[in-house]
Amino acid sequence: MFAPLQNDSFLRACLRQPTEHTPVWLMRQAGRYLAEYRDTRAKAGSFMGLATNTAFATEVTLQPLERYALDAAILFSDILTVPDAMGLGLSFAIGEGPRFAHAVRDEAAVAKLAVPDMDKLRYVFDAVTSIRKALNGRVPLIGFSGSPWTLACYMVEGAGSDDYRLVKTMLYRRPDLMHRILEINADAVALYLNTQIEAGAQAVMVFDSWGGVLADGAFQEFSLAYTRRVLKQLKREHAGARIPHIVFTKGGGLWVEQIAAQIDGVGPDVVGLDWTMNLGSARRLTGDRVALQGNLDPNVLFADAAQIRAEATKVLESFGAPRNAQGGYGGHVFNLGHGISQHTPPDAVSVLVDTVHEVSRRIRAA
Amino acid sequence: MFAPLQNDSFLRACLRQPTEHTPVWLMRQAGRYLAEYRDTRAKAGSFMGLATNTAFATEVTLQPLERYALDAAILFSDILTVPDAMGLGLSFAIGEGPRFAHAVRDEAAVAKLAVPDMDKLRYVFDAVTSIRKALNGRVPLIGFSGSPWTLACYMVEGAGSDDYRLVKTMLYRRPDLMHRILEINADAVALYLNTQIEAGAQAVMVFDSWGGVLADGAFQEFSLAYTRRVLKQLKREHAGARIPHIVFTKGGGLWVEQIAAQIDGVGPDVVGLDWTMNLGSARRLTGDRVALQGNLDPNVLFADAAQIRAEATKVLESFGAPRNAQGGYGGHVFNLGHGISQHTPPDAVSVLVDTVHEVSRRIRAA
Repeated sequence: MFAPLQNDSFLRACLRQPTEHTPVWLMRQAGRYLAEYRDTRAKAGSFMGLATNTAFATEVTLQPLERYALDAAILFSDILTVPDAMGLGLSFAIGEGPRFAHAVRDEAAVAKLAVPDMDKLRYVFDAVTSIRKALNGRVPLIGFSGSPWTLACYMVEGAGSDDYRLVKTMLYRRPDLMHRILEINADAVALYLNTQIEAGAQAVMVFDSWGGVLADGAFQEFSLAYTRRVLKQLKREHAGARIPHIVFTKGGGLWVEQIAAQIDGVGPDVVGLDWTMNLGSARRLTGDRVALQGNLDPNVLFADAAQIRAEATKVLESFGAPRNAQGGYGGHVFNLGHGISQHTPPDAVSVLVDTVHEVSRRIRAA
Repeated sequence: MFAPLQNDSFLRACLRQPTEHTPVWLMRQAGRYLAEYRDTRAKAGSFMGLATNTAFATEVTLQPLERYALDAAILFSDILTVPDAMGLGLSFAIGEGPRFAHAVRDEAAVAKLAVPDMDKLRYVFDAVTSIRKALNGRVPLIGFSGSPWTLACYMVEGAGSDDYRLVKTMLYRRPDLMHRILEINADAVALYLNTQIEAGAQAVMVFDSWGGVLADGAFQEFSLAYTRRVLKQLKREHAGARIPHIVFTKGGGLWVEQIAAQIDGVGPDVVGLDWTMNLGSARRLTGDRVALQGNLDPNVLFADAAQIRAEATKVLESFGAPRNAQGGYGGHVFNLGHGISQHTPPDAVSVLVDTVHEVSRRIRAA
């Protein structure tokens, strides 16, 4: 059904297999910093108009690959599609970020929640298949979802928040309700990602964008436990290929060993890290039992070319050579520590991607 | 000049000396969650009207002590008084947070910066002396400042930010300018805190509220190095008493060992932590060479009394008994991991403070 893969460096690094260079892709690589994206979005009329239209979603997913030597594509979509399919009414007001018409704030609202019919998310799976075909084997396609906890944050707050007061009030006052939301979210996310895999996604990523706002203890109970409930249900293989599972927790550096843990055969293949964590430290703490993804500060892309090269090199050197002292391999997928800024000069991304490839070849040759 | 201290548990815990209970105070304990604060603020007309009036600043500093058995008072002021005294024009628009009329964004603006004349901050030192007198020895008075990096964030951004794009662009594009700002800020903060000590502050705290947004490497170079430049210049004693130095880095858990380090006789007495860091882990990593301050999630105060008691107990138990296995002492100052929310029900604070005292006595007796 799909063309054979020409560049598998991303999948190999995820599985801690040798690669000639460190593969690189960027969170939110299809986005507003690209003029061609802004053109397509203008045609689509709105963000959800873009995400729900197969042709547009395919077009914008491939745009950054035309400009840059990226080693993976990621489905163009939003992390909040699942609660939207639950009937919460997602919208994007201009300059304001996502908003739900029906926030989940009491027992009655929680009682109404259920794993949504995947038919309501058909536009996502159609986009996955369309993008995979359009890629024609150039690079692998990553599918994704928000984590159960991150979805719950938006579902309870009804929008972004700077203090997470409403969702944490529920967590501390009514942990029973919070656990119920998280169970449903976890089962919904697992089904959603498995359906993306069936539609053509070659790796899947769980974005725990708000895990880092939780207290130690609460993170493990209300975020990590449910990310693991997702991982437990995910397909490990499809159509004869291993499907790497990536978990990214913004602000999760302190818990990297727990996030990376393999317990009863359940754990991620790749752990994504933001820029606060030293990759060398993370590698020592996790003992190369997972690959690491990250972790340049997106603001480095506002510097001049020489400084971008210097900072990207620091990240590569902090990880070090993939081959470790035991003769095994660690895997490194280069990325930013968070989504690329809409204000990024597009030329800066060329400098970054080319630097990652050049310098990582040099590190392997040393 | 000042009355003798009746409750020195806070100062003793800061210096890792035995105390009968774990002392507790709360960041932003004098604040909008208290009706009496809102009344005084209404009289003052504005936040800066409150902070610059000695009588009002004294009144609001003492308000939480009338309600709760807190073990320390903290000067009512703002972290941005120093750049205001540098001539940047601080204001507080309603519901918007602080704003500077003259952001520092280019070489010319940086060239104009200098350590301000402390006479421009006389209102702060007058407030310190007035509060200390009004306290009449009940509990110690903490003075404070923003850290050099945190001040620089506001000075360059001109206001709060969610991506720190402008300040990080300067950091990565023009590190020379950023270092110049930080040098001036560090020397200004040191002079400011020393003058607070002379005016009557019995401990001083540096708030590195935005240190945690920096990349590993950048944090050490652009935040911690300048916090240490402050610490190096701070008075260690005044009027025959040791003056504890507290450093709080929001999001700094990954760097707790480096923040706590004593190098060439320079280092903090107390390290403040937010709720993401386990206090037991921090204690092991720092080997009881510093006291720890923190670290309850302020959102716990939205739970019911039983849950507040349970969560406060968890924090106390994560630290454990002050006496360690080597027969020495660790110090714990109970606090929130960040400022108290304006939406906090005042009764929740009573539950918290009383729980800390009761449970910490029980832990010592066990």
